[in-house]
Amino acid sequence: MSKQRFFEAFLAYAGLNMVLAAAAAALCAFIAPSAAGSGIPEVKAYLNGIDAHSILAPTTLFVKIVGSILGVSAGFVVGKEGPMVHTGACIASILGQGGSKKYGLTWSWLRYFKNDRDRRDMITCGAAAGVAAAFRSPVGGVLFALEEAASWWRSALLWRSFFTTAVVAIVLRAGIQFCSTGKCGLFGEGGLILYDVGSPQTEFSAGDIVAVIVLGTVAGILGSIYNFLVDKVVRTYSIINEKGPFFKIFLAVAISLLTSCCYYFLPWIANCIPCPTDSKVPCPSVDESGEYKIFQCPPGYYNDLASLFLNTNDDAIRNLFSPKITKEFHISSLFIFFATVYFLGILTYGIAVPSGLFIPVILAGAAYGRVVSRLFEPITQLDRGFFSLLGAASMLGGTMRMTVSICVILLELTNDLLLLPLVMLVLLISKSVADIFNKGVYDQILKIKGLPYLEAHAEPYMRNIATRDVVSGPLMTFSGIEKVGNILHVLNTTGHNGFPVIDEPPFVDAPELCGLVLRSYLLVLLKAKNFTREKVYANPSILENISVLDFGKAGSGKGVKLEDLDIQDEDLDMYVDLHPITNTSPYTVVETMSLAKAAILFRQHGLRHMCVVPKSQGRPPIVGILTRHDFMPEHVLGLYPDIKHHKWH
Amino acid sequence: MSKQRFFEAFLAYAGLNMVLAAAAAALCAFIAPSAAGSGIPEVKAYLNGIDAHSILAPTTLFVKIVGSILGVSAGFVVGKEGPMVHTGACIASILGQGGSKKYGLTWSWLRYFKNDRDRRDMITCGAAAGVAAAFRSPVGGVLFALEEAASWWRSALLWRSFFTTAVVAIVLRAGIQFCSTGKCGLFGEGGLILYDVGSPQTEFSAGDIVAVIVLGTVAGILGSIYNFLVDKVVRTYSIINEKGPFFKIFLAVAISLLTSCCYYFLPWIANCIPCPTDSKVPCPSVDESGEYKIFQCPPGYYNDLASLFLNTNDDAIRNLFSPKITKEFHISSLFIFFATVYFLGILTYGIAVPSGLFIPVILAGAAYGRVVSRLFEPITQLDRGFFSLLGAASMLGGTMRMTVSICVILLELTNDLLLLPLVMLVLLISKSVADIFNKGVYDQILKIKGLPYLEAHAEPYMRNIATRDVVSGPLMTFSGIEKVGNILHVLNTTGHNGFPVIDEPPFVDAPELCGLVLRSYLLVLLKAKNFTREKVYANPSILENISVLDFGKAGSGKGVKLEDLDIQDEDLDMYVDLHPITNTSPYTVVETMSLAKAAILFRQHGLRHMCVVPKSQGRPPIVGILTRHDFMPEHVLGLYPDIKHHKWH
Repeated sequence: MSKQRFFEAFLAYAGLNMVLAAAAAALCAFIAPSAAGSGIPEVKAYLNGIDAHSILAPTTLFVKIVGSILGVSAGFVVGKEGPMVHTGACIASILGQGGSKKYGLTWSWLRYFKNDRDRRDMITCGAAAGVAAAFRSPVGGVLFALEEAASWWRSALLWRSFFTTAVVAIVLRAGIQFCSTGKCGLFGEGGLILYDVGSPQTEFSAGDIVAVIVLGTVAGILGSIYNFLVDKVVRTYSIINEKGPFFKIFLAVAISLLTSCCYYFLPWIANCIPCPTDSKVPCPSVDESGEYKIFQCPPGYYNDLASLFLNTNDDAIRNLFSPKITKEFHISSLFIFFATVYFLGILTYGIAVPSGLFIPVILAGAAYGRVVSRLFEPITQLDRGFFSLLGAASMLGGTMRMTVSICVILLELTNDLLLLPLVMLVLLISKSVADIFNKGVYDQILKIKGLPYLEAHAEPYMRNIATRDVVSGPLMTFSGIEKVGNILHVLNTTGHNGFPVIDEPPFVDAPELCGLVLRSYLLVLLKAKNFTREKVYANPSILENISVLDFGKAGSGKGVKLEDLDIQDEDLDMYVDLHPITNTSPYTVVETMSLAKAAILFRQHGLRHMCVVPKSQGRPPIVGILTRHDFMPEHVLGLYPDIKHHKWH
Repeated sequence: MSKQRFFEAFLAYAGLNMVLAAAAAALCAFIAPSAAGSGIPEVKAYLNGIDAHSILAPTTLFVKIVGSILGVSAGFVVGKEGPMVHTGACIASILGQGGSKKYGLTWSWLRYFKNDRDRRDMITCGAAAGVAAAFRSPVGGVLFALEEAASWWRSALLWRSFFTTAVVAIVLRAGIQFCSTGKCGLFGEGGLILYDVGSPQTEFSAGDIVAVIVLGTVAGILGSIYNFLVDKVVRTYSIINEKGPFFKIFLAVAISLLTSCCYYFLPWIANCIPCPTDSKVPCPSVDESGEYKIFQCPPGYYNDLASLFLNTNDDAIRNLFSPKITKEFHISSLFIFFATVYFLGILTYGIAVPSGLFIPVILAGAAYGRVVSRLFEPITQLDRGFFSLLGAASMLGGTMRMTVSICVILLELTNDLLLLPLVMLVLLISKSVADIFNKGVYDQILKIKGLPYLEAHAEPYMRNIATRDVVSGPLMTFSGIEKVGNILHVLNTTGHNGFPVIDEPPFVDAPELCGLVLRSYLLVLLKAKNFTREKVYANPSILENISVLDFGKAGSGKGVKLEDLDIQDEDLDMYVDLHPITNTSPYTVVETMSLAKAAILFRQHGLRHMCVVPKSQGRPPIVGILTRHDFMPEHVLGLYPDIKHHKWH
């Protein structure tokens, strides 16, 4: 990059970025569309009980890893943290499925994980491991899994995820030790602690507190605006992306060009700053990882804005976190950097590239904190680097609305627990302020993606609706001993996954609810073809040629399918006893129970089906079945549009 | 304490200790027996849903604070951490009750907390604040509340407890800042970070790992032995304590004498060690807080064992955590100290004095870690102080079986996150090893106290029992419109707190379950005396002269009592409509549901009553009511003694 050939340099820079961006977008568009974006909302959805197609498939894993590397290399304002959480969850999911049959990787001992609960636990641990690896923050990883990812939490899960992140920490440290000889490029720099904000004061004045409160409040507002704009941008992009893979690639390339323009041309605005005389690192530097970029400046001077823009994200954050004595930035440079990263972060999310949100928000927040520290210089003694950290914390709190986990992650990044009280304060302020305006960014993305996420709390108006008022559709039930033809017909004509089984006379006096049978179990039973001519109870040998393992939860796209069945016409009039495969302890609620209470029950137990039974006698023994979709506010409001505005006394 | 008057010195030392011990025990014995012990099991029980008498009463709070100060001053091997958790919970509980009416302290805005859930949340935050204050560890406090104290966890609770501990941290820091001028004695020393283990290595050899694994394994065994012995000792003591208050005081004085003997006479065994020449603190010292005690040694020498024994617990721990270069102990001194503290800690718990378990275990663990570091000197390069910290962590893991919270508390104490991986490793090893042998020490104490604690998981044999098999006793039900006399009779003759309400003909076609009514609500309704002569539905005005607040959960010993009612004889034949106060959405389970599933439902929703409804029609609409006691393993095994040994296929 010689001084005289600026335009060629830009062409090379932007061109390379665009090629990398196109490659990342092509991978996402053609191979695994669900690998685009952060991945944290998807993991959150899966842990909430949503088995969406291909969220955690092996191809998603591959594209997520490669695409994330390409995306970060392309100079996008994206992070690697969200994708690493998704990666961790994918690996856990593949292990939880007992390996991938399609790719010939299976381990028989993993079959014990073939159930919903253990797979969910595995994936929670995987998400914790992702954060632990991305931020080198083992305790933060556990807290992230607890606060943001998991919908259900068991105390055993706490120490299991803790164990997972402990292993991550030890492996990471071994890797860093191995790489400390310089064999692995930039990896391993900084040990387990990435950033050092210098030793802070332990005493605060009233002015410091005022500055921090203002910082947190404004960050809360900025964070909620961020979420609002991300929401709008993602909705706009999804219209473009739906038109086809080439539109996806085009959009990614366009954003890449915009990013390159900002990064290349904005530093020209900045003034040159004389190098510090006592610097231990070369200043000015021309190579890719230096702290003081020469850019267009004369020797002995450096360009502060270029030091932020034309650097790795990690180094830019380290620059911003550095104490005042070590390095200083012009307030105009900081403001330009903040505005650029803030808006580019918004514009970049939603393109078909694996893109984390943590790094853009931390970058914007760190620059914002440093700007604020300049403004409050007269009243506060706090160090610039510390203010920058507080800015990053407050911006994270304002967008993601996590508290404990962000606090611990940032403290683990900087290794100074003395910072704790102010970081806690600023996080709580920004989260509380932002919560007034809208929801956290991940919740918004979940909603845009149309994933039926069950909130921990029911909507207030659900207290005034009984469960019987929302059960919908014709109810399909089976007799305890049912005709094979009927079962096949029902399986063919409906998409339900659970069916109530009713015991009928002459086996009992009056019809009564025997339990619930799953579609997958019915398919396994039909495949075994243990049918009888008469309507009689099956003898105990019916399950003999079926292994218990066949009933295990299959991986995505696996398990017995309706087309696999080989039922002859003469079988259709025969009977099969459903009792051996019926869950006789399904969760039931009375039809008059409030929907709010039923929703809490549904969510807390991680149910997929809930039986609604009648209150009075002399009626069929089941009123209906509630599934996840029946609890969605959209569904309820669709049935009762006026209920939200109704005044309840 | 002149050199020649050893015996007089001992008399003064032991005498003072015994007076303090007697005072502490007298407070516990006469005013608030439930203030004895750690308090953590009691808080855990309350948060599990056990409203045991006086656990969180104002008198308990007073005795806990004063008794804990006296107990620690008396030189017992006890900590202040457990009592501080209990103190925090008591304060939260008093706030949650809306102040104490008995002592004239009430705030009307606190009435919004008058329900089970909010009070429980308050107390969880109080427990977190206790740990945060005791260890100056805000994040550790949140994790402690999550991992050990709380039985139910909501995501909102996470940031509420986080907020509480943030306030604690800020108040603590303000206090320390105020005290840094030296006005407050020993308080405030060391800032927020109590112990400094020196800067550790970040690279570990295979020998280090082997040493740490051995350390953790042995600590797990020692921890489970500790728990076993505490169990035996507490059971023995409770026989003595039951004989009366004077036996309690006598026991406390006896243990105090034993402690004084150990602390005074054991240092005579130790050899004198020459003072380091470059020490910054006076060596040898004769005052109470010095690091190098002269004891019986000549000038220029110090007694290492006396430096541990005749010191505050905090200073002893700081001495043990200090790096090798700063201070050294004889291995024999360390071993004597370890054995003494280990066994005195066991013998002290269970006397009628507020006594935390954290400090004794940390002391024993730190000494143990330093002993192990001497033994493994040939193969490990790790610092003694770090080994001492690992020893404390492993011993805590072995007795209390917490992982994440202990890890974070220790890291917040020492302010060095670089220690994290090995601390995690050693905690997991010691917890896993100890879990083979017995349960955590708090769970054992809960069991000794006979508190019906509901475990998060049902026992395996409960899967083979249906709920109808455990409902017991004659079921008391009310009609929807019930005779006042009947209600009074039932309230007088039974102690139940919840009664099913059955709607009967002519109001409905066949009897059906209307809901559940609480004893406290019935009392409020009866007190208002809105009775009718005929069996008719009440008009809506029935609740007009009752405030909604009357139904709020009263504090301990408050609320309407049966004796407060003023029912005349002519009222007894009148009717009262129970519908307005009936909970028409009680949680119900079908009689054939497995007890294990019902137990999970009961615990996860924090229920007090669960209705069991019949499966088949034509029977009374309710089979029975399950309460907490029906899920206790003792109850179930009492009904079906053979079920545990039965083989299930």
